Amino acid sequence: MSELSNSNFSLIYNIFSLTIASMGAAFIFFLVGRSQVGAKYRPALLVSALVVAIACYHYFRIFNSFEEAYALGASGTYAPTGKPFNDAYRYVDWLLTVPLLLVELIAVMQLKGKESEGTLSKLAIAAFLMIALGYPGEIIKDDMMMRGIWGALSSIPFVYILYVLWVKLGAAIGSESPRVQVLVRNIRLLMLATWGFYPITYMLPMFGISPESAVVGVQVGYAISDILAKAGYGVMIYAIARAKSEADGSLPDLA
Amino acid sequence: MSELSNSNFSLIYNIFSLTIASMGAAFIFFLVGRSQVGAKYRPALLVSALVVAIACYHYFRIFNSFEEAYALGASGTYAPTGKPFNDAYRYVDWLLTVPLLLVELIAVMQLKGKESEGTLSKLAIAAFLMIALGYPGEIIKDDMMMRGIWGALSSIPFVYILYVLWVKLGAAIGSESPRVQVLVRNIRLLMLATWGFYPITYMLPMFGISPESAVVGVQVGYAISDILAKAGYGVMIYAIARAKSEADGSLPDLA
Repeated sequence: MSELSNSNFSLIYNIFSLTIASMGAAFIFFLVGRSQVGAKYRPALLVSALVVAIACYHYFRIFNSFEEAYALGASGTYAPTGKPFNDAYRYVDWLLTVPLLLVELIAVMQLKGKESEGTLSKLAIAAFLMIALGYPGEIIKDDMMMRGIWGALSSIPFVYILYVLWVKLGAAIGSESPRVQVLVRNIRLLMLATWGFYPITYMLPMFGISPESAVVGVQVGYAISDILAKAGYGVMIYAIARAKSEADGSLPDLA
Repeated sequence: MSELSNSNFSLIYNIFSLTIASMGAAFIFFLVGRSQVGAKYRPALLVSALVVAIACYHYFRIFNSFEEAYALGASGTYAPTGKPFNDAYRYVDWLLTVPLLLVELIAVMQLKGKESEGTLSKLAIAAFLMIALGYPGEIIKDDMMMRGIWGALSSIPFVYILYVLWVKLGAAIGSESPRVQVLVRNIRLLMLATWGFYPITYMLPMFGISPESAVVGVQVGYAISDILAKAGYGVMIYAIARAKSEADGSLPDLA
């Protein structure tokens, strides 16, 4: 582990705090917001709430682990204390939350029947493989070749998930109201953009930047991706639930 | 960082605690008070609750950071411990809460349609610029010229936001009941007064006062502004929601 300048340490520290606040606020929003959508869409919002609750917990752990891994030295820079910064929290988080993110989408779209259950199982297995194959590369900080190989293996199930969702959602929106169609197209783009941000962050240390810049880039990149892919994505799920409630007459405001 | 007298340290310390209590109480009020307004206005109150929850979290962090940044010396004054007081919590808070304050207002006024979505996006971008341009000046404690330049840049989007809200709200109240019109005029004034307090606080260190007085003024000024602009503003939003529920017959008390 390399030293961190005061401003780099503060940047990571404050981004972690921002993530905790975002996930915590999103948790309250999804939980209480359940009463603001039709009853059919409430399970989707509950799952959104679980995702950000799990992430909020993990970012508390990440924040504390980061604080303990560095100490302010006499020179005004932060030096490693020797206590390792635990990268694995994030992977444990993803193991739980990525399958739930897929459940959210399927629940709000009301994709039903045997076929969608089969799809969900396949996507959940792909998500597990994607995360399990990424982790060995994540903890490699020196051999960029091996990091690249694990990353490439991890991106096979990653591309599979995005492909299946893209096609499934495209097929499902035909019968929806124009407003819902726009929202579903937007959430597809949001998924592509935010999920696409993870591999870029993963590859940062391979671009020949300094170890300190790599630490900052990876931590800030993952945190922002997590906020968008979990809290931002959940807000989109809420918007879809509202629009679908309005279209099918189950919006509580109208009652 | 300068030393703080016992009474100045206690003043800041107690104002932070007051802020935590205010935000926490406001959170409970807005959350539970949702059932006391018509269903249409509940999303606005939920957003009010999120704003004060986020602020409550940040004031806990600010409080702890402040406590760790100073230690009581033998002379009875508080001396810096060397651990930096993290100014950034407040800016991170504003990044999240200022856009939400705008959402509250648009949600309670039921400003709808494409046009209001466009307005909200523009205002959110302006809010981001206002905060992002203010921060570099905030952390400058010695070069008052540079602090002033960042502050001036930050106040361009600030004036834009206030101007747009002033005009939008003025146009929106024409069709409201006289009671609602009075409340909306009051919330406009509250926004102008509380938001206007932030730049004054920001400029305090530029008035040639002692560094110790500047610390006290900035911390106390921001804390009071935050209580009024978040909890006080939320109470006004609640009053508008009640008056509008009464006007449109959706007040739960009438049922």
